[in-house]
Amino acid sequence: MTHSIPVSLPDSSYNVAIAPQQLPQLGTTLKTLKLGKKILVISNPDVFNVYGETVMTSLEDAGFETASHLIAAGESHKTLATVAQIYDMALGQRLERSSTLLALGGGVIGDMTGFAAATWLRGIHFVQVPTSLLAMVDASIGGKTGVNHPQGKNLIGAFYQPKLVYIDPLVLKTLPDREFRAGMAEVIKYGVIWDRELFALLEQAPQLATLQQLTPDLLTAIIARSCQAKVDVVTQDEKEAGLRAILNYGHTMGHAIESLTGYGAINHGEAVALGMIAVGRMATHLGLWSTEDEGRQRALIAKAGLETCIPQAIAINDLLNTLQWDKKVKDGKIRFILPDGIGKAVISDQITERVIREAITEVTED
Amino acid sequence: MTHSIPVSLPDSSYNVAIAPQQLPQLGTTLKTLKLGKKILVISNPDVFNVYGETVMTSLEDAGFETASHLIAAGESHKTLATVAQIYDMALGQRLERSSTLLALGGGVIGDMTGFAAATWLRGIHFVQVPTSLLAMVDASIGGKTGVNHPQGKNLIGAFYQPKLVYIDPLVLKTLPDREFRAGMAEVIKYGVIWDRELFALLEQAPQLATLQQLTPDLLTAIIARSCQAKVDVVTQDEKEAGLRAILNYGHTMGHAIESLTGYGAINHGEAVALGMIAVGRMATHLGLWSTEDEGRQRALIAKAGLETCIPQAIAINDLLNTLQWDKKVKDGKIRFILPDGIGKAVISDQITERVIREAITEVTED
Repeated sequence: MTHSIPVSLPDSSYNVAIAPQQLPQLGTTLKTLKLGKKILVISNPDVFNVYGETVMTSLEDAGFETASHLIAAGESHKTLATVAQIYDMALGQRLERSSTLLALGGGVIGDMTGFAAATWLRGIHFVQVPTSLLAMVDASIGGKTGVNHPQGKNLIGAFYQPKLVYIDPLVLKTLPDREFRAGMAEVIKYGVIWDRELFALLEQAPQLATLQQLTPDLLTAIIARSCQAKVDVVTQDEKEAGLRAILNYGHTMGHAIESLTGYGAINHGEAVALGMIAVGRMATHLGLWSTEDEGRQRALIAKAGLETCIPQAIAINDLLNTLQWDKKVKDGKIRFILPDGIGKAVISDQITERVIREAITEVTED
Repeated sequence: MTHSIPVSLPDSSYNVAIAPQQLPQLGTTLKTLKLGKKILVISNPDVFNVYGETVMTSLEDAGFETASHLIAAGESHKTLATVAQIYDMALGQRLERSSTLLALGGGVIGDMTGFAAATWLRGIHFVQVPTSLLAMVDASIGGKTGVNHPQGKNLIGAFYQPKLVYIDPLVLKTLPDREFRAGMAEVIKYGVIWDRELFALLEQAPQLATLQQLTPDLLTAIIARSCQAKVDVVTQDEKEAGLRAILNYGHTMGHAIESLTGYGAINHGEAVALGMIAVGRMATHLGLWSTEDEGRQRALIAKAGLETCIPQAIAINDLLNTLQWDKKVKDGKIRFILPDGIGKAVISDQITERVIREAITEVTED
């Protein structure tokens, strides 16, 4: 059965549908929305190989005119040039304002497809069918779309909401373990900043490092709670004016780590986990967090099979310099999200460089 | 004195300020808005040569940190590649979310700068200082931003509202006559579809083909009424769901003419004038319009020094084929805006190809 989480925004409301083993019902679900007849599916070869036929058949059986366009996997393809390819395909298929771009894939596919949908004909319909844990619990919800600039991640983009996010948790069975663990970093984040019951659920789980040993029910519950956390936050702050910033817990530091290691050696989730480790330490130093809670976070991150030390190869001065470039810097001040308990967080741009430096040093490999 | 037209939209309200001879007060006016300290001015060499110093001095005197980036003039530069240059400059200047992109120029500069502002860091502040009549009365108001695709105008873009549109009508004194007349096409359009008093004002004006013989007061009145017409329509329909379509009177046909002649030989306003001529004829054929009103429109277009016949070089079959590609086509049907009086218009997608063909033939040069 399908669990629906409504996302209510002033201009555009939609549902996040969590539908275990329901991928073949995608077409009939879309049929209930007011979409035009054309759907262009954007995916990558790995995902499309496994799920392409199911999705295309489902859409065609529901009466849609379909086409697909594949983009090579990986963050390095998340560029304006790749979006230009989607534009060309949209033109070739004569997509109209009532047509739909459907993202079938992970966060890279979703972010780029969403940006193309936001900007083709000044906005056509957009549907997310995330196939990675990271995309399910994070990237697909909240309307952030975009591509990377050669000098920084997600610098080019738009806020643009999908008409539907359709999640079949069971598609994760083909996800590489490393990608699964990267998604768990975001799940743990929600536990720390928003949902202490989710945090407890994760602590009680037999393990978190691979999907194979999680029951479908536990997996679905973890995904549903994470999606609900993200929906709670983004519906209260669609355009990141205030509260939504707490979702960036671990991210400002994480982005800097990704940027310094060239986007790839350390993936997004792994970098966010390291960011949470570093910022968690800052929170403890500032007296906001207890050593015990910091330890519980570290234990969960380790349980998910994620690294808990920043690699020695990352020079602290490079890291501090890169932090200054982050788009969340306001008037030169770096804004950090600091946990102050399990399930809640505060925002501060008053952290001194000394505290940042000390925390990073302490959580870097010897 | 400044005449302010408020634009009230659900998410973003702003003013269109009509401020004759007030360009040097731009900085102090911006100071009253809540903008960050950095302003990057985007302009073209022709405009910046004449008004750059006034604008930059005004901004700096008001305490802003400024930089400028010039883009070669012309529609052919309205591309994703040029926007990428603006991104590079935004990065180089370390623009933050609170920073501002200011468009100083005509529609091309405004559309591209707006699109860059909409998509840099998922949206930074945007201010329009239009310097052509076309940009003042049309492009700068309503939030349409974007660039051309090699195969179609404005296919890539976003709806994004400025924080202020600041119009000094007197800057038009350096505008070439041909550009002035192109702007008059849009002014006449407002008269036909929305404002019969504006139409009458234009009929009573001693002439409309050059700025030099218009008094500053009459020029300001014409611009203010045109801006008010556009504001009236866009505030009732921000995202072009319904009413706003009437602003496309003459445009679907005009875009096709521009596209077929390679964007340039016939400029936007000239093409729109020809579009109004052709569609006006369709309206008369359909019994919606009187021969007398059609004649009054033709007389005004001629008075503004604009052509009233489609060039013979444009083959009717090419024109019909190009019309099918317009982004305002919905489920294969071409939607036309048809005047049914002076000051009002209706929307129809039920026009037969025979009527379209006949009207075009009749208004094409022998």
